Amino acid sequence: MKNIYIIGVGLIGGSLALDIKKNDPKIKVFGIDHNDAHLEEAIQLKVIDAKATYEDLNHADLVIMSIPVDAAVTEIIKVLKLVSDNALVMDVGSTKAEICKAIEQHPKRRNFLATHPIAGTEFSGPKAAILGLYKNKTNIICEVEKTAFKLQEKALQLFVDLGMRIRYMNPEAHDKHIAYVSHLSHISAFMLGKTVIDKEKNERDIFDMAGSGFASTVRLAKSSPEMWTPIFKQNKANVLETLDEYISNLTKFRALMHDDDFEAIYSEMKNTNHIKEILNGIE
Amino acid sequence: MKNIYIIGVGLIGGSLALDIKKNDPKIKVFGIDHNDAHLEEAIQLKVIDAKATYEDLNHADLVIMSIPVDAAVTEIIKVLKLVSDNALVMDVGSTKAEICKAIEQHPKRRNFLATHPIAGTEFSGPKAAILGLYKNKTNIICEVEKTAFKLQEKALQLFVDLGMRIRYMNPEAHDKHIAYVSHLSHISAFMLGKTVIDKEKNERDIFDMAGSGFASTVRLAKSSPEMWTPIFKQNKANVLETLDEYISNLTKFRALMHDDDFEAIYSEMKNTNHIKEILNGIE
Repeated sequence: MKNIYIIGVGLIGGSLALDIKKNDPKIKVFGIDHNDAHLEEAIQLKVIDAKATYEDLNHADLVIMSIPVDAAVTEIIKVLKLVSDNALVMDVGSTKAEICKAIEQHPKRRNFLATHPIAGTEFSGPKAAILGLYKNKTNIICEVEKTAFKLQEKALQLFVDLGMRIRYMNPEAHDKHIAYVSHLSHISAFMLGKTVIDKEKNERDIFDMAGSGFASTVRLAKSSPEMWTPIFKQNKANVLETLDEYISNLTKFRALMHDDDFEAIYSEMKNTNHIKEILNGIE
Repeated sequence: MKNIYIIGVGLIGGSLALDIKKNDPKIKVFGIDHNDAHLEEAIQLKVIDAKATYEDLNHADLVIMSIPVDAAVTEIIKVLKLVSDNALVMDVGSTKAEICKAIEQHPKRRNFLATHPIAGTEFSGPKAAILGLYKNKTNIICEVEKTAFKLQEKALQLFVDLGMRIRYMNPEAHDKHIAYVSHLSHISAFMLGKTVIDKEKNERDIFDMAGSGFASTVRLAKSSPEMWTPIFKQNKANVLETLDEYISNLTKFRALMHDDDFEAIYSEMKNTNHIKEILNGIE
Protein backbone atom coordinates (compact mmCIF):
# COMPACT_ATOMS: atom_id res chain seq x y z
CA MET A 1 0.00 0.00 0.00
CA LYS A 2 1.22 3.44 -0.96
CA ASN A 3 -1.66 5.88 -0.73
CA ILE A 4 -4.15 5.87 2.11
CA TYR A 5 -7.06 8.29 2.27
CA ILE A 6 -8.74 9.00 5.58
CA ILE A 7 -12.21 10.50 5.23
CA GLY A 8 -12.92 12.26 8.53
CA VAL A 9 -9.70 13.15 10.31
CA GLY A 10 -10.73 12.95 13.97
CA LEU A 11 -9.92 10.73 16.94
CA ILE A 12 -10.53 7.40 15.18
CA GLY A 13 -9.27 8.20 11.68
CA GLY A 14 -6.40 10.31 12.97
CA SER A 15 -5.18 7.62 15.36
CA LEU A 16 -5.25 5.07 12.52
CA ALA A 17 -3.21 7.47 10.39
CA LEU A 18 -0.59 7.91 13.12
CA ASP A 19 -0.10 4.16 13.59
CA ILE A 20 -0.09 3.38 9.86
CA LYS A 21 2.55 6.05 9.18
CA LYS A 22 4.65 4.82 12.08
CA ASN A 23 4.51 1.19 10.91
CA ASP A 24 5.42 2.08 7.33
CA PRO A 25 6.88 5.57 6.83
CA LYS A 26 6.77 5.10 3.04
CA ILE A 27 2.97 5.19 3.05
CA LYS A 28 1.45 8.55 2.22
CA VAL A 29 -1.66 9.42 4.23
CA PHE A 30 -4.11 11.92 2.77
CA GLY A 31 -6.96 13.50 4.69
CA ILE A 32 -10.42 14.39 3.38
CA ASP A 33 -12.71 16.39 5.65
CA HIS A 34 -15.47 18.95 5.17
CA ASN A 35 -13.85 20.85 8.03
CA ASP A 36 -10.81 22.54 6.47
CA ALA A 37 -9.52 23.75 9.85
CA HIS A 38 -9.35 20.10 10.97
CA LEU A 39 -7.32 19.24 7.87
CA GLU A 40 -4.86 22.08 8.50
CA GLU A 41 -4.59 21.06 12.16
CA ALA A 42 -4.04 17.42 11.14
CA ILE A 43 -1.20 18.44 8.81
CA GLN A 44 0.39 20.59 11.49
CA LEU A 45 0.15 17.75 14.02
CA LYS A 46 1.64 15.38 11.40
CA VAL A 47 -1.45 13.20 11.66
CA ILE A 48 -1.74 13.31 7.83
CA ASP A 49 0.77 14.16 5.12
CA ALA A 50 -1.52 16.24 2.92
CA LYS A 51 -5.13 17.08 2.25
CA ALA A 52 -7.11 15.71 -0.65
CA THR A 53 -10.59 15.58 -2.19
CA TYR A 54 -12.88 12.89 -3.57
CA GLU A 55 -11.38 13.57 -7.03
CA ASP A 56 -8.09 12.05 -5.80
CA LEU A 57 -9.70 8.79 -4.61
CA ASN A 58 -8.83 6.95 -7.82
CA HIS A 59 -5.22 6.92 -6.52
CA ALA A 60 -6.20 5.22 -3.27
CA ASP A 61 -4.96 1.78 -2.21
CA LEU A 62 -7.00 2.09 0.98
CA VAL A 63 -9.81 4.42 2.00
CA ILE A 64 -10.83 4.59 5.68
CA MET A 65 -14.17 6.22 6.37
CA SER A 66 -14.23 7.60 9.89
CA ILE A 67 -17.19 9.94 9.78
CA PRO A 68 -20.54 9.89 11.63
CA VAL A 69 -22.53 6.76 10.77
CA ASP A 70 -25.35 8.59 8.97
CA ALA A 71 -22.87 10.32 6.66
CA ALA A 72 -21.01 7.03 6.13
CA VAL A 73 -24.13 5.34 4.77
CA THR A 74 -24.52 7.89 1.97
CA GLU A 75 -20.85 8.69 1.35
CA ILE A 76 -19.85 5.03 0.95
CA ILE A 77 -21.91 4.83 -2.27
CA LYS A 78 -20.01 7.75 -3.79
CA VAL A 79 -16.61 6.58 -2.53
CA LEU A 80 -16.99 3.07 -3.92
CA LYS A 81 -17.79 4.54 -7.33
CA LEU A 82 -14.62 6.65 -7.31
CA VAL A 83 -12.03 4.11 -6.21
CA SER A 84 -10.11 1.74 -8.47
CA ASP A 85 -10.95 -1.97 -8.71
CA ASN A 86 -8.02 -2.85 -6.44
CA ALA A 87 -8.78 -0.41 -3.66
CA LEU A 88 -9.97 -1.46 -0.22
CA VAL A 89 -12.59 0.76 1.42
CA MET A 90 -13.32 0.31 5.14
CA ASP A 91 -15.65 2.06 7.53
CA VAL A 92 -15.03 2.09 11.28
CA GLY A 93 -18.46 3.08 12.57
CA SER A 94 -20.20 1.92 15.74
CA THR A 95 -23.20 0.50 13.82
CA LYS A 96 -22.87 -2.06 11.07
CA ALA A 97 -26.33 -3.16 9.85
CA GLU A 98 -27.31 -0.03 7.91
CA ILE A 99 -24.02 0.44 6.08
CA CYS A 100 -23.89 -3.24 5.09
CA LYS A 101 -27.44 -2.99 3.82
CA ALA A 102 -26.72 0.24 1.93
CA ILE A 103 -24.02 -1.36 -0.23
CA GLU A 104 -25.49 -4.88 -0.41
CA GLN A 105 -26.12 -4.63 -4.16
CA HIS A 106 -23.32 -2.20 -4.98
CA PRO A 107 -21.23 -3.36 -7.98
CA LYS A 108 -18.11 -2.68 -5.89
CA ARG A 109 -19.37 -4.50 -2.77
CA ARG A 110 -16.25 -6.69 -2.81
CA ASN A 111 -14.05 -3.61 -2.35
CA PHE A 112 -15.69 -2.85 0.99
CA LEU A 113 -14.95 -4.20 4.48
CA ALA A 114 -17.19 -3.35 7.45
CA THR A 115 -15.12 -2.95 10.63
CA HIS A 116 -15.58 -1.63 14.14
CA PRO A 117 -12.38 -1.11 16.09
CA ILE A 118 -13.47 -1.02 19.77
CA ALA A 119 -11.21 1.80 20.81
CA GLY A 120 -11.44 5.49 21.49
CA THR A 121 -11.58 8.14 24.12
CA GLU A 122 -14.24 10.73 24.98
CA PHE A 123 -12.36 13.39 22.97
CA SER A 124 -12.71 14.30 19.30
CA GLY A 125 -10.97 16.08 16.43
CA PRO A 126 -7.44 15.61 15.03
CA LYS A 127 -5.78 16.72 18.28
CA ALA A 128 -7.47 13.76 20.00
CA ALA A 129 -5.55 11.31 17.77
CA ILE A 130 -3.25 9.01 19.76
CA LEU A 131 -0.39 6.78 18.64
CA GLY A 132 -0.99 3.17 19.72
CA LEU A 133 -4.74 3.61 20.41
CA TYR A 134 -5.55 0.26 18.78
CA LYS A 135 -2.91 -1.92 20.43
CA ASN A 136 -4.49 -4.98 22.13
CA LYS A 137 -7.98 -3.75 21.25
CA THR A 138 -10.72 -5.77 19.57
CA ASN A 139 -11.74 -5.15 15.97
CA ILE A 140 -15.09 -6.55 14.89
CA ILE A 141 -15.39 -7.40 11.21
CA CYS A 142 -18.78 -8.02 9.64
CA GLU A 143 -19.65 -9.98 6.49
CA VAL A 144 -15.98 -10.72 5.80
CA GLU A 145 -16.99 -13.25 3.14
CA LYS A 146 -18.43 -10.44 1.00
CA THR A 147 -15.04 -8.74 0.64
CA ALA A 148 -12.57 -9.79 -2.08
CA PHE A 149 -10.10 -12.29 -0.67
CA LYS A 150 -7.01 -10.24 -1.53
CA LEU A 151 -8.50 -7.16 0.14
CA GLN A 152 -9.41 -9.21 3.24
CA GLU A 153 -5.75 -10.20 3.48
CA LYS A 154 -4.64 -6.59 3.13
CA ALA A 155 -6.99 -5.48 5.88
CA LEU A 156 -6.00 -8.29 8.24
CA GLN A 157 -2.31 -7.49 7.81
CA LEU A 158 -3.07 -3.87 8.66
CA PHE A 159 -4.96 -4.87 11.82
CA VAL A 160 -2.22 -7.29 12.87
CA ASP A 161 0.32 -4.47 12.43
CA LEU A 162 -1.86 -2.28 14.68
CA GLY A 163 -1.80 -5.01 17.33
CA MET A 164 -5.54 -5.75 17.21
CA ARG A 165 -7.52 -8.93 17.97
CA ILE A 166 -10.10 -9.81 15.33
CA ARG A 167 -13.66 -11.03 15.95
CA TYR A 168 -16.10 -11.93 13.14
CA MET A 169 -19.82 -11.28 13.55
CA ASN A 170 -22.83 -10.59 11.43
CA PRO A 171 -23.97 -6.94 11.37
CA GLU A 172 -27.24 -7.60 13.23
CA ALA A 173 -25.51 -9.43 16.11
CA HIS A 174 -22.89 -6.68 16.25
CA ASP A 175 -25.49 -3.93 16.56
CA LYS A 176 -27.49 -5.83 19.16
CA HIS A 177 -24.53 -6.61 21.41
CA ILE A 178 -22.70 -3.32 21.03
CA ALA A 179 -25.87 -1.56 22.22
CA TYR A 180 -25.27 -3.22 25.61
CA VAL A 181 -21.55 -2.70 26.08
CA SER A 182 -21.16 0.66 24.38
CA HIS A 183 -24.27 2.59 23.40
CA LEU A 184 -26.07 2.11 26.75
CA SER A 185 -22.96 3.22 28.69
CA HIS A 186 -23.04 6.51 26.82
CA ILE A 187 -26.69 7.19 27.66
CA SER A 188 -26.10 6.15 31.27
CA ALA A 189 -23.21 8.64 31.52
CA PHE A 190 -25.02 11.46 29.70
CA MET A 191 -28.09 11.18 31.91
CA LEU A 192 -26.00 10.91 35.09
CA GLY A 193 -24.21 14.11 34.05
CA LYS A 194 -27.54 15.80 33.30
CA THR A 195 -29.03 14.78 36.65
CA VAL A 196 -26.13 16.26 38.60
CA ILE A 197 -25.81 19.40 36.43
CA ASP A 198 -29.55 20.10 36.86
CA LYS A 199 -29.16 19.80 40.62
CA GLU A 200 -26.07 22.02 40.64
CA LYS A 201 -28.09 24.84 39.03
CA ASN A 202 -30.09 25.16 42.25
CA GLU A 203 -27.57 24.01 44.80
CA ARG A 204 -24.06 25.30 44.18
CA ASP A 205 -20.75 23.63 44.90
CA ILE A 206 -21.92 20.06 44.35
CA PHE A 207 -19.09 19.44 41.91
CA ASP A 208 -16.60 20.53 44.52
CA MET A 209 -17.56 17.27 46.26
CA ALA A 210 -17.12 15.06 43.22
CA GLY A 211 -14.33 12.50 43.29
CA SER A 212 -12.71 10.16 40.82
CA GLY A 213 -15.63 7.69 41.06
CA PHE A 214 -18.10 10.22 39.68
CA ALA A 215 -15.57 11.36 37.07
CA SER A 216 -15.15 7.79 35.84
CA THR A 217 -18.87 7.01 35.71
CA VAL A 218 -19.74 10.22 33.86
CA ARG A 219 -16.66 10.31 31.58
CA LEU A 220 -18.52 9.31 28.40
CA ALA A 221 -20.82 12.33 28.79
CA LYS A 222 -17.96 14.31 27.23
CA SER A 223 -18.47 12.42 23.95
CA SER A 224 -19.40 14.14 20.71
CA PRO A 225 -23.19 14.54 20.13
CA GLU A 226 -22.44 14.89 16.40
CA MET A 227 -21.13 11.33 16.40
CA TRP A 228 -23.55 9.79 18.87
CA THR A 229 -26.91 11.12 17.65
CA PRO A 230 -26.73 9.17 14.34
CA ILE A 231 -25.54 6.04 16.20
CA PHE A 232 -28.63 6.12 18.43
CA LYS A 233 -30.80 6.79 15.37
CA GLN A 234 -29.39 3.87 13.37
CA ASN A 235 -29.44 1.49 16.31
CA LYS A 236 -32.74 2.69 17.74
CA ALA A 237 -34.48 -0.66 18.28
CA ASN A 238 -31.53 -2.27 20.07
CA VAL A 239 -30.75 0.78 22.17
CA LEU A 240 -34.39 1.08 23.25
CA GLU A 241 -34.25 -2.55 24.40
CA THR A 242 -31.14 -1.96 26.51
CA LEU A 243 -32.59 1.26 27.92
CA ASP A 244 -35.78 -0.52 28.92
CA GLU A 245 -33.81 -3.19 30.78
CA TYR A 246 -31.57 -0.62 32.44
CA ILE A 247 -34.52 1.55 33.57
CA SER A 248 -36.30 -1.58 34.80
CA ASN A 249 -33.26 -2.62 36.88
CA LEU A 250 -32.95 0.87 38.35
CA THR A 251 -36.66 0.94 39.14
CA LYS A 252 -36.43 -2.42 40.91
CA PHE A 253 -33.42 -1.23 42.91
CA ARG A 254 -35.39 1.88 43.85
CA ALA A 255 -38.35 -0.23 45.01
CA LEU A 256 -36.09 -2.42 47.17
CA MET A 257 -34.64 0.67 48.80
CA HIS A 258 -38.08 2.20 49.27
CA ASP A 259 -39.29 -1.01 50.95
CA ASP A 260 -36.20 -1.14 53.19
CA ASP A 261 -35.18 -4.49 51.73
CA PHE A 262 -31.48 -3.90 52.21
CA GLU A 263 -30.69 -7.60 52.18
CA ALA A 264 -31.86 -7.67 48.58
CA ILE A 265 -29.92 -4.45 47.87
CA TYR A 266 -26.84 -6.21 49.21
CA SER A 267 -27.47 -9.25 46.97
CA GLU A 268 -28.00 -7.08 43.90
CA MET A 269 -24.58 -5.54 44.40
CA LYS A 270 -22.87 -8.78 45.39
CA ASN A 271 -24.18 -10.52 42.26
CA THR A 272 -22.84 -7.74 40.07
CA ASN A 273 -19.45 -7.65 41.80
CA HIS A 274 -18.04 -10.37 39.56
CA ILE A 275 -17.85 -7.72 36.86
CA LYS A 276 -14.35 -7.45 38.39
CA GLU A 277 -13.19 -10.66 36.73
CA ILE A 278 -15.08 -9.88 33.53
CA LEU A 279 -13.38 -6.51 33.15
CA ASN A 280 -9.91 -7.88 33.74
CA GLY A 281 -7.86 -7.09 30.70
CA ILE A 282 -10.23 -4.48 29.29
CA GLU A 283 -9.06 -1.49 31.30
CA MET B 1 0.87 12.72 68.16
CA LYS B 2 2.50 9.44 69.07
CA ASN B 3 -0.14 6.70 68.95
CA ILE B 4 -2.73 6.44 66.22
CA TYR B 5 -5.38 3.72 66.18
CA ILE B 6 -7.13 2.83 62.93
CA ILE B 7 -10.40 0.98 63.44
CA GLY B 8 -11.06 -0.86 60.16
CA VAL B 9 -7.84 -1.41 58.23
CA GLY B 10 -9.04 -1.33 54.64
CA LEU B 11 -8.61 0.95 51.62
CA ILE B 12 -9.50 4.21 53.41
CA GLY B 13 -8.00 3.54 56.86
CA GLY B 14 -4.97 1.74 55.44
CA SER B 15 -4.18 4.54 53.00
CA LEU B 16 -4.40 7.08 55.85
CA ALA B 17 -2.01 4.90 57.90
CA LEU B 18 0.52 4.75 55.05
CA ASP B 19 0.58 8.53 54.58
CA ILE B 20 0.68 9.31 58.29
CA LYS B 21 3.61 6.93 58.85
CA LYS B 22 5.45 8.38 55.86
CA ASN B 23 4.97 11.97 57.04
CA ASP B 24 6.14 11.21 60.58
CA PRO B 25 7.99 7.91 61.02
CA LYS B 26 7.99 8.38 64.82
CA ILE B 27 4.23 7.88 64.97
CA LYS B 28 3.11 4.36 65.86
CA VAL B 29 0.02 3.17 63.98
CA PHE B 30 -2.09 0.41 65.54
CA GLY B 31 -4.83 -1.46 63.74
CA ILE B 32 -8.11 -2.69 65.20
CA ASP B 33 -10.27 -4.92 63.02
CA HIS B 34 -12.73 -7.77 63.62
CA ASN B 35 -11.05 -9.52 60.70
CA ASP B 36 -7.79 -10.87 62.12
CA ALA B 37 -6.53 -11.95 58.68
CA HIS B 38 -6.79 -8.30 57.55
CA LEU B 39 -4.73 -7.21 60.56
CA GLU B 40 -2.01 -9.79 59.82
CA GLU B 41 -2.02 -8.74 56.17
CA ALA B 42 -1.81 -5.06 57.15
CA ILE B 43 1.22 -5.76 59.37
CA GLN B 44 2.91 -7.74 56.61
CA LEU B 45 2.26 -4.95 54.09
CA LYS B 46 3.61 -2.44 56.66
CA VAL B 47 0.30 -0.59 56.55
CA ILE B 48 0.19 -0.72 60.39
CA ASP B 49 2.90 -1.29 62.97
CA ALA B 50 0.94 -3.60 65.26
CA LYS B 51 -2.53 -4.82 66.09
CA ALA B 52 -4.51 -3.67 69.10
CA THR B 53 -7.93 -3.89 70.76
CA TYR B 54 -10.43 -1.45 72.25
CA GLU B 55 -8.70 -1.93 75.64
CA ASP B 56 -5.66 -0.10 74.28
CA LEU B 57 -7.63 2.95 73.15
CA ASN B 58 -6.84 4.91 76.33
CA HIS B 59 -3.31 5.32 74.88
CA ALA B 60 -4.59 6.87 71.67
CA ASP B 61 -3.80 10.42 70.56
CA LEU B 62 -5.91 9.90 67.48
CA VAL B 63 -8.52 7.28 66.56
CA ILE B 64 -9.67 7.00 62.94
CA MET B 65 -12.85 5.02 62.40
CA SER B 66 -12.91 3.64 58.86
CA ILE B 67 -15.61 0.99 59.11
CA PRO B 68 -19.02 0.67 57.40
CA VAL B 69 -21.29 3.58 58.34
CA ASP B 70 -23.81 1.47 60.28
CA ALA B 71 -21.07 0.02 62.48
CA ALA B 72 -19.54 3.48 62.92
CA VAL B 73 -22.77 4.84 64.43
CA THR B 74 -22.76 2.27 67.25
CA GLU B 75 -18.99 1.87 67.71
CA ILE B 76 -18.39 5.61 68.05
CA ILE B 77 -20.31 5.61 71.37
CA LYS B 78 -18.04 2.91 72.79
CA VAL B 79 -14.84 4.42 71.39
CA LEU B 80 -15.53 7.89 72.80
CA LYS B 81 -16.03 6.35 76.24
CA LEU B 82 -12.65 4.59 76.08
CA VAL B 83 -10.38 7.39 74.88
CA SER B 84 -8.64 9.97 77.05
CA ASP B 85 -9.86 13.56 77.33
CA ASN B 86 -7.14 14.73 74.95
CA ALA B 87 -7.75 12.21 72.19
CA LEU B 88 -9.19 13.13 68.80
CA VAL B 89 -11.64 10.64 67.28
CA MET B 90 -12.58 10.98 63.58
CA ASP B 91 -14.80 9.00 61.31
CA VAL B 92 -14.35 9.03 57.53
CA GLY B 93 -17.72 7.66 56.38
CA SER B 94 -19.71 8.61 53.30
CA THR B 95 -22.77 9.71 55.35
CA LYS B 96 -22.58 12.31 58.08
CA ALA B 97 -26.08 13.03 59.45
CA GLU B 98 -26.64 9.81 61.44
CA ILE B 99 -23.24 9.71 63.11
CA CYS B 100 -23.44 13.38 64.10
CA LYS B 101 -26.90 12.79 65.52
CA ALA B 102 -25.76 9.65 67.38
CA ILE B 103 -23.15 11.53 69.43
CA GLU B 104 -24.97 14.87 69.66
CA GLN B 105 -25.41 14.58 73.43
CA HIS B 106 -22.34 12.46 74.13
CA PRO B 107 -20.24 13.83 77.03
CA LYS B 108 -17.17 13.49 74.82
CA ARG B 109 -18.75 15.17 71.76
CA ARG B 110 -15.87 17.68 71.69
CA ASN B 111 -13.39 14.84 71.12
CA PHE B 112 -15.08 13.90 67.84
CA LEU B 113 -14.64 15.31 64.33
CA ALA B 114 -16.92 14.21 61.46
CA THR B 115 -14.95 14.01 58.20
CA HIS B 116 -15.42 12.64 54.71
CA PRO B 117 -12.28 12.45 52.61
CA ILE B 118 -13.51 12.22 48.99
CA ALA B 119 -11.01 9.65 47.84
CA GLY B 120 -10.88 5.97 47.16
CA THR B 121 -10.88 3.31 44.53
CA GLU B 122 -13.27 0.45 43.79
CA PHE B 123 -11.04 -1.98 45.71
CA SER B 124 -11.13 -2.91 49.39
CA GLY B 125 -9.08 -4.50 52.18
CA PRO B 126 -5.56 -3.65 53.42
CA LYS B 127 -3.95 -4.60 50.10
CA ALA B 128 -6.01 -1.83 48.46
CA ALA B 129 -4.25 0.81 50.60
CA ILE B 130 -2.30 3.34 48.52
CA LEU B 131 0.34 5.87 49.50
CA GLY B 132 -0.69 9.40 48.47
CA LEU B 133 -4.39 8.56 47.96
CA TYR B 134 -5.47 11.82 49.62
CA LYS B 135 -3.16 14.25 47.86
CA ASN B 136 -5.12 17.12 46.23
CA LYS B 137 -8.42 15.51 47.26
CA THR B 138 -11.28 17.26 49.08
CA ASN B 139 -12.06 16.54 52.72
CA ILE B 140 -15.48 17.58 53.93
CA ILE B 141 -15.71 18.41 57.62
CA CYS B 142 -19.08 18.66 59.34
CA GLU B 143 -20.01 20.53 62.54
CA VAL B 144 -16.42 21.68 63.07
CA GLU B 145 -17.57 24.09 65.77
CA LYS B 146 -18.61 21.16 67.98
CA THR B 147 -15.05 19.83 68.16
CA ALA B 148 -12.59 21.13 70.79
CA PHE B 149 -10.46 23.90 69.28
CA LYS B 150 -7.14 22.17 70.00
CA LEU B 151 -8.35 18.95 68.39
CA GLN B 152 -9.63 20.88 65.34
CA GLU B 153 -6.10 22.25 64.96
CA LYS B 154 -4.58 18.77 65.25
CA ALA B 155 -6.92 17.40 62.58
CA LEU B 156 -6.35 20.30 60.19
CA GLN B 157 -2.57 19.90 60.46
CA LEU B 158 -2.99 16.21 59.63
CA PHE B 159 -5.11 16.99 56.55
CA VAL B 160 -2.69 19.69 55.39
CA ASP B 161 0.14 17.16 55.70
CA LEU B 162 -1.89 14.74 53.56
CA GLY B 163 -2.23 17.47 50.91
CA MET B 164 -6.02 17.78 51.20
CA ARG B 165 -8.35 20.73 50.52
CA ILE B 166 -10.90 21.34 53.29
CA ARG B 167 -14.58 22.19 52.82
CA TYR B 168 -16.98 22.82 55.72
CA MET B 169 -20.64 21.78 55.46
CA ASN B 170 -23.46 20.79 57.73
CA PRO B 171 -24.19 17.04 57.83
CA GLU B 172 -27.60 17.34 56.13
CA ALA B 173 -26.20 19.34 53.18
CA HIS B 174 -23.32 16.88 52.92
CA ASP B 175 -25.61 13.86 52.73
CA LYS B 176 -27.91 15.53 50.22
CA HIS B 177 -25.16 16.61 47.83
CA ILE B 178 -22.97 13.53 48.13
CA ALA B 179 -25.99 11.44 47.09
CA TYR B 180 -25.73 13.14 43.67
CA VAL B 181 -22.00 13.03 43.05
CA SER B 182 -21.17 9.72 44.72
CA HIS B 183 -24.02 7.49 45.85
CA LEU B 184 -26.01 7.76 42.58
CA SER B 185 -22.89 6.98 40.50
CA HIS B 186 -22.54 3.71 42.35
CA ILE B 187 -26.14 2.64 41.67
CA SER B 188 -25.82 3.73 38.05
CA ALA B 189 -22.70 1.55 37.67
CA PHE B 190 -24.11 -1.44 39.57
CA MET B 191 -27.30 -1.50 37.49
CA LEU B 192 -25.39 -1.01 34.23
CA GLY B 193 -23.23 -3.99 35.18
CA LYS B 194 -26.31 -6.03 36.07
CA THR B 195 -28.06 -5.17 32.79
CA VAL B 196 -25.10 -6.34 30.72
CA ILE B 197 -24.35 -9.42 32.85
CA ASP B 198 -28.02 -10.51 32.58
CA LYS B 199 -27.82 -10.18 28.80
CA GLU B 200 -24.52 -12.06 28.64
CA LYS B 201 -26.16 -15.06 30.33
CA ASN B 202 -28.26 -15.59 27.22
CA GLU B 203 -26.01 -14.21 24.55
CA ARG B 204 -22.36 -15.11 25.01
CA ASP B 205 -19.28 -13.11 24.14
CA ILE B 206 -20.79 -9.70 24.74
CA PHE B 207 -17.94 -8.76 27.05
CA ASP B 208 -15.46 -9.58 24.34
CA MET B 209 -16.84 -6.47 22.65
CA ALA B 210 -16.50 -4.21 25.68
CA GLY B 211 -14.01 -1.38 25.50
CA SER B 212 -12.52 1.14 27.90
CA GLY B 213 -15.68 3.29 27.81
CA PHE B 214 -17.81 0.51 29.27
CA ALA B 215 -15.06 -0.35 31.77
CA SER B 216 -14.96 3.25 32.99
CA THR B 217 -18.74 3.63 33.29
CA VAL B 218 -19.18 0.36 35.17
CA ARG B 219 -16.01 0.59 37.30
CA LEU B 220 -17.81 1.40 40.56
CA ALA B 221 -19.80 -1.86 40.28
CA LYS B 222 -16.67 -3.50 41.70
CA SER B 223 -17.23 -1.67 45.00
CA SER B 224 -17.84 -3.46 48.29
CA PRO B 225 -21.53 -4.27 49.03
CA GLU B 226 -20.58 -4.52 52.73
CA MET B 227 -19.65 -0.86 52.68
CA TRP B 228 -22.32 0.41 50.31
CA THR B 229 -25.48 -1.26 51.67
CA PRO B 230 -25.35 0.71 54.97
CA ILE B 231 -24.59 3.94 53.08
CA PHE B 232 -27.75 3.54 50.99
CA LYS B 233 -29.70 2.65 54.14
CA GLN B 234 -28.53 5.70 56.08
CA ASN B 235 -28.98 8.07 53.16
CA LYS B 236 -32.18 6.50 51.86
CA ALA B 237 -34.29 9.66 51.42
CA ASN B 238 -31.60 11.56 49.52
CA VAL B 239 -30.58 8.60 47.37
CA LEU B 240 -34.22 7.90 46.43
CA GLU B 241 -34.53 11.52 45.31
CA THR B 242 -31.46 11.26 43.05
CA LEU B 243 -32.62 7.90 41.69
CA ASP B 244 -36.04 9.34 40.84
CA GLU B 245 -34.44 12.19 38.92
CA TYR B 246 -32.02 9.87 37.14
CA ILE B 247 -34.77 7.41 36.15
CA SER B 248 -36.93 10.32 35.01
CA ASN B 249 -34.12 11.69 32.80
CA LEU B 250 -33.49 8.23 31.30
CA THR B 251 -37.21 7.76 30.69
CA LYS B 252 -37.43 11.14 28.92
CA PHE B 253 -34.41 10.25 26.77
CA ARG B 254 -36.07 6.96 25.91
CA ALA B 255 -39.29 8.75 24.90
CA LEU B 256 -37.39 11.17 22.65
CA MET B 257 -35.69 8.22 20.93
CA HIS B 258 -38.95 6.35 20.62
CA ASP B 259 -40.57 9.41 19.01
CA ASP B 260 -37.61 9.87 16.62
CA ASP B 261 -36.90 13.31 18.05
CA PHE B 262 -33.18 13.10 17.40
CA GLU B 263 -32.80 16.88 17.39
CA ALA B 264 -33.80 16.81 21.05
CA ILE B 265 -31.50 13.83 21.68
CA TYR B 266 -28.67 15.90 20.20
CA SER B 267 -29.53 18.86 22.46
CA GLU B 268 -29.69 16.65 25.55
CA MET B 269 -26.14 15.48 24.89
CA LYS B 270 -24.83 18.90 23.82
CA ASN B 271 -26.19 20.48 27.02
CA THR B 272 -24.46 17.87 29.15
CA ASN B 273 -21.16 18.13 27.27
CA HIS B 274 -19.92 20.99 29.46
CA ILE B 275 -19.35 18.38 32.14
CA LYS B 276 -15.91 18.48 30.45
CA GLU B 277 -15.01 21.79 32.07
CA ILE B 278 -16.66 20.82 35.35
CA LEU B 279 -14.60 17.65 35.62
CA ASN B 280 -11.32 19.40 34.88
CA GLY B 281 -9.07 18.84 37.83
CA ILE B 282 -11.08 15.97 39.33
CA GLU B 283 -9.69 13.15 37.26
